[in-house]
Amino acid sequence: MTPRIREILSWYGADNPGTLTNLARLLGHGKLGGTGKLVILPVDQGFEHGPGRSFAPNPPAYDPRYHFQLALDAGCNAYAAPLGFLEAGAREFAGDLPLILKASNHDVLMDEKDPDQALTATVHDALRLGCVGIGFTIYPGSANRLKMYEMVRAQAEEAKKHGLVVIVWAYPRGSQLSKEGETAIDVCGYAAQIACQLGAHIAKVKVPTAHLEQPEAKKVYEERQVPIGTIAERIAHVVQCAFDGRRIVIFSGGAEASEDALLEEVRGIQAGGGFGSIIGRNSFQRPHDEAVSLLGRIIDIYQGN
Amino acid sequence: MTPRIREILSWYGADNPGTLTNLARLLGHGKLGGTGKLVILPVDQGFEHGPGRSFAPNPPAYDPRYHFQLALDAGCNAYAAPLGFLEAGAREFAGDLPLILKASNHDVLMDEKDPDQALTATVHDALRLGCVGIGFTIYPGSANRLKMYEMVRAQAEEAKKHGLVVIVWAYPRGSQLSKEGETAIDVCGYAAQIACQLGAHIAKVKVPTAHLEQPEAKKVYEERQVPIGTIAERIAHVVQCAFDGRRIVIFSGGAEASEDALLEEVRGIQAGGGFGSIIGRNSFQRPHDEAVSLLGRIIDIYQGN
Amino acid sequence: MTPRIREILSWYGADNPGTLTNLARLLGHGKLGGTGKLVILPVDQGFEHGPGRSFAPNPPAYDPRYHFQLALDAGCNAYAAPLGFLEAGAREFAGDLPLILKASNHDVLMDEKDPDQALTATVHDALRLGCVGIGFTIYPGSANRLKMYEMVRAQAEEAKKHGLVVIVWAYPRGSQLSKEGETAIDVCGYAAQIACQLGAHIAKVKVPTAHLEQPEAKKVYEERQVPIGTIAERIAHVVQCAFDGRRIVIFSGGAEASEDALLEEVRGIQAGGGFGSIIGRNSFQRPHDEAVSLLGRIIDIYQGN
Amino acid sequence: MTPRIREILSWYGADNPGTLTNLARLLGHGKLGGTGKLVILPVDQGFEHGPGRSFAPNPPAYDPRYHFQLALDAGCNAYAAPLGFLEAGAREFAGDLPLILKASNHDVLMDEKDPDQALTATVHDALRLGCVGIGFTIYPGSANRLKMYEMVRAQAEEAKKHGLVVIVWAYPRGSQLSKEGETAIDVCGYAAQIACQLGAHIAKVKVPTAHLEQPEAKKVYEERQVPIGTIAERIAHVVQCAFDGRRIVIFSGGAEASEDALLEEVRGIQAGGGFGSIIGRNSFQRPHDEAVSLLGRIIDIYQGN
Amino acid sequence: MTPRIREILSWYGADNPGTLTNLARLLGHGKLGGTGKLVILPVDQGFEHGPGRSFAPNPPAYDPRYHFQLALDAGCNAYAAPLGFLEAGAREFAGDLPLILKASNHDVLMDEKDPDQALTATVHDALRLGCVGIGFTIYPGSANRLKMYEMVRAQAEEAKKHGLVVIVWAYPRGSQLSKEGETAIDVCGYAAQIACQLGAHIAKVKVPTAHLEQPEAKKVYEERQVPIGTIAERIAHVVQCAFDGRRIVIFSGGAEASEDALLEEVRGIQAGGGFGSIIGRNSFQRPHDEAVSLLGRIIDIYQGN
Repeated sequence: MTPRIREILSWYGADNPGTLTNLARLLGHGKLGGTGKLVILPVDQGFEHGPGRSFAPNPPAYDPRYHFQLALDAGCNAYAAPLGFLEAGAREFAGDLPLILKASNHDVLMDEKDPDQALTATVHDALRLGCVGIGFTIYPGSANRLKMYEMVRAQAEEAKKHGLVVIVWAYPRGSQLSKEGETAIDVCGYAAQIACQLGAHIAKVKVPTAHLEQPEAKKVYEERQVPIGTIAERIAHVVQCAFDGRRIVIFSGGAEASEDALLEEVRGIQAGGGFGSIIGRNSFQRPHDEAVSLLGRIIDIYQGN
Repeated sequence: MTPRIREILSWYGADNPGTLTNLARLLGHGKLGGTGKLVILPVDQGFEHGPGRSFAPNPPAYDPRYHFQLALDAGCNAYAAPLGFLEAGAREFAGDLPLILKASNHDVLMDEKDPDQALTATVHDALRLGCVGIGFTIYPGSANRLKMYEMVRAQAEEAKKHGLVVIVWAYPRGSQLSKEGETAIDVCGYAAQIACQLGAHIAKVKVPTAHLEQPEAKKVYEERQVPIGTIAERIAHVVQCAFDGRRIVIFSGGAEASEDALLEEVRGIQAGGGFGSIIGRNSFQRPHDEAVSLLGRIIDIYQGN
Repeated sequence: MTPRIREILSWYGADNPGTLTNLARLLGHGKLGGTGKLVILPVDQGFEHGPGRSFAPNPPAYDPRYHFQLALDAGCNAYAAPLGFLEAGAREFAGDLPLILKASNHDVLMDEKDPDQALTATVHDALRLGCVGIGFTIYPGSANRLKMYEMVRAQAEEAKKHGLVVIVWAYPRGSQLSKEGETAIDVCGYAAQIACQLGAHIAKVKVPTAHLEQPEAKKVYEERQVPIGTIAERIAHVVQCAFDGRRIVIFSGGAEASEDALLEEVRGIQAGGGFGSIIGRNSFQRPHDEAVSLLGRIIDIYQGN
Repeated sequence: MTPRIREILSWYGADNPGTLTNLARLLGHGKLGGTGKLVILPVDQGFEHGPGRSFAPNPPAYDPRYHFQLALDAGCNAYAAPLGFLEAGAREFAGDLPLILKASNHDVLMDEKDPDQALTATVHDALRLGCVGIGFTIYPGSANRLKMYEMVRAQAEEAKKHGLVVIVWAYPRGSQLSKEGETAIDVCGYAAQIACQLGAHIAKVKVPTAHLEQPEAKKVYEERQVPIGTIAERIAHVVQCAFDGRRIVIFSGGAEASEDALLEEVRGIQAGGGFGSIIGRNSFQRPHDEAVSLLGRIIDIYQGN
Repeated sequence: MTPRIREILSWYGADNPGTLTNLARLLGHGKLGGTGKLVILPVDQGFEHGPGRSFAPNPPAYDPRYHFQLALDAGCNAYAAPLGFLEAGAREFAGDLPLILKASNHDVLMDEKDPDQALTATVHDALRLGCVGIGFTIYPGSANRLKMYEMVRAQAEEAKKHGLVVIVWAYPRGSQLSKEGETAIDVCGYAAQIACQLGAHIAKVKVPTAHLEQPEAKKVYEERQVPIGTIAERIAHVVQCAFDGRRIVIFSGGAEASEDALLEEVRGIQAGGGFGSIIGRNSFQRPHDEAVSLLGRIIDIYQGN
């Protein structure tokens, strides 16, 4: 246990030792183990976007075992996936790496302005599969958001009782948000705050832009001259919104991007004090060795190299 | 236990020995026993389409015992039906063949653009009736789909605890899907993926066409030149979408068709690596002996003859 | 126990001895006891249509005890009513005749195109009141039907566990059905099938007309030349739709009618192999002695006289 | 125990001795104790209409203890109020008079065409506060009525298990009822019937007018020449609709009225065989002594003086 | 225990000693301990308005520990916040000051005419975090209000069983209320009444204006000449609406205001017999020492200085 991990655990004073143990496992695994930084491989796109769109670019990725192995080979902290994908490899890879059960999902066979999530697995599933944590998506901004917050509440209560880590994917979407508002700095910071207030141990948000969406917020950001000009400044602001840095907040890698653009973003996350990345499509949609290499370069950045 | 069955069971590493035992029973019964292929007789059309439309073409089929006997005579792996039909024969045929309780249903006395399913039986019913498995229909694409996914989740958790096999009928339908989109290859593959991600042991989908429905998917299928020209190619793709062949995926026989057309389709399923067929109207709507004969020819194909 | 009752009980092989005992009580009581035919007195019209419309034509019928006595005097197999009516006489008439708790209700103070039913009592109430069975109305065709099916499912599971008989009143209604479609032969047969598939021991439907409502069904009925010209033929078809005669299906008497018209209908039910009648308004809206006399003539017909 | 009370208890043969005991307490308390008549003080208007509208006319009534004392001073059978009002005096007045917990409420900060009620307390609360009974409002006619019936069903089952009396306030309202239809004789009678069929021990309705609202009912009332010309005749009809007088039905006092008009109405209730009055605004909105005096005159009428 | 606290506790005769103990803790803590007056620091604005708008004016306030310390330094009676904020400091500040878990929340990423609240924590959470009470927001006037009342009912029942104090934030909002109607004296008084009738131990409302919103109420206020001209009169009226002063009612500080305006309002609350203030934005949005000083001056007023 490094001093940094001990420090991070100290922020979670309301949690039982079981949850701290699982959080320590997550923070202690892989190449970033002990640094307090995280790179997680998440693969829920088969459900969320469809298998063809997700895996045709790199067909070995249709096999659920591929992702366990990729996360291991790249030295990620953990692998996160829906019930089916985890069930299909959990015995074979038992004990090899921390697993996170992505326990809510949505698909795009219908495109709603105010999307919702289905609860697709529970704490019981996470425990029987040997996971360290359980994750849920919320869509702040959706007319269905209160229902999703209540789903997180109920599941998080169970998770904490049973010593699991709770991760909340906070993706602003909804009929009153503009497309660019979904990644606006005020909205991303708000989403991180909501996840933390709901009791998440780890919040996951998108890398924000400098756009300010809500007039009431815009007024305050401008009056107070909150620095949001660079990626690093915006990351620092989101970290501030996540209880002034006392909750772990990590950032999604987004759609497939050039390696340079992605690494630039990661450098911004590192510079702004972000806790790491959750890199899905940019890893499993590349050939295995390229993905391992790219994840290695990302990990290097988080190691301060 | 043949090596192939042992191999198939190995894919279900997250399941308890109870579920593996029932899966082995299902795969071990009938003329295809031990091959890893399945032909199942499903009779829920009395509920789903109405008794007159379903059984008037072959009136003995009004009697629920008829279907148990037909499945036995034809050497099917199992018989699947709603609560009432199973209750009406389960004692008489106890131990004769594996049964699957079709535990959700819908009727066509109202025609909705975004259909839903009612939960019409539970795991408790499946256990008291001696079933090896329990099945549910989902309509990916429907505005009600998330509710159906949650129904499957809740029931599947119970089923797995109690050692039952979970079968999901994944039929894309909904207000944003075109009629031909319901059997589009991208949509069928997506439906199979969703069923598997929800934790189904067996997914059932329709035989797909070469149509591509969703623009975002179409783009990827075309760029990556995913082969979807022949039935066999499309079946292979759906199998790939079902965890790269590590989940059993079977195909429905559809509305009454000529024997040649049906057998041609079955040859495609076999060539593409599909795990079998679930043949309802094309069996019970024919006279008994014709049906046995037709199912025999289908079974022959799956035996590699 | 007559051979016929033993035969009928043999159809319910999935039920426990408790339910068979109650079914035997129902079939063994009254003038038709042992014949396998049933005449039941149902009085839920106070709730469903209002007390004035229901009881003003025969004011003694406002008293809940009146109906217990009428059913006894007429030699009916059973008396069926909502919670309040049964509570008001169950102690006084305890042990005198089989009771059925009508546990769902609807009123006409609002007239909806897609009606629903409220659960107004439970299996616990049926047991504490000494009932042999519990009944529910479903409206196949209504946008709310799936919810009603789920209510029946939940209550029927409880009822069967506790040894009660389950009766389902299946009345097609809904925004996509025409008025005459509600009693169309294809629709009535479909409703009987749904009730049986939901696990009802006894289905109750209206006497159907020769109208064919649904185009897809009409096509099959015409192609297959299903005989539906006479009442007897239509009854025989509905019996066929109720698991080829292996579930008890009884027919409602409908609104007040002339004695001749009603008896003609009953002769048709008997000729078609129906299991009996459930006669509400045509009995309790007549003076007591006339009602006893009319029910006597109906019973005569079912006795084959 | 007077013979009349013994007679009334005999109507409730399905209830346990606990409920009969509480019903006897209610009927045995106050100046009307033993007569079988009831005058109850209900004070839920603070919730239902707002405190200013309700209590400003007589400011001492803002204090929840005022109403306990008023009911005592006037010799009422019981005091009925929502959770908060009862909690605020139940210890101080423990054992002084029978209490009824009004366990559902609605407010008028929104005015809906199809109103609903919130469940605001439960049987557990009634028991811990020492109540003899628990009450609920239903709005027959509202699109939300089935939901309210189900609320009553669930709570009444609990109440009866625990020996409480169930009172249902049946107030017809809804988008298909005209304003005058809400107090029409056919509709009031129907509302009383619904309350009784739901298993209420006591139904409370408004004093009806001679208006006939529903065409189907109007036809029958006219054909059968049901006498509804005088208050007494209409009361007698409502009593008939409440299981021919075998359920207690009481009448609300309505909005503030002149003493003469109110007493005239009470004389009609008495003449028609009604079981009593529930007088809220006409008592607590008058100064204490005037209210006691008025209630005394009402009680006098029910004593047959 | 001062006589005043003993008097206040005497109003809560329906509560168990556990709840009285926690209420005594709340009333006994801080500079106002023993006076019967309360100044509470509430910080749910990070969730309700967003972190930027809330904390950018005083960036140390992003840290959840800041508010525990501020409440301590200022001598407040208690600190109230959502789950996440309390979890982030409850161990560090265990035993230092009374905590209130704000267990329902809403955000402004969607702006609804009829807002609702999500249940975001439960009594179980309040107990494991060492809180003395639990709080909920209701929006009387919203089409969703009945659902919120039911949430409060269910949670309050649990809270009272477990010895917690229940605080209800009653904020009138909804599609039929005008903007100025939200703080109208009739509406504020009504909101306080609803909170108390729902069983709240403490109601929190906004400082009302002299506007009268509802025509039926306006009529009565004017006829009865209810004094509402000054802040003190309006406060006195709200106190009257809260069971004539037998329930604790406190007032929110509102949006950031000048110190003079705020103190003027507090003097009015004190003069009108209000029980205190709940001051969020006007405390944590000021620099720490200014906030302590301002809260000190507020406390002085409540001490009668």
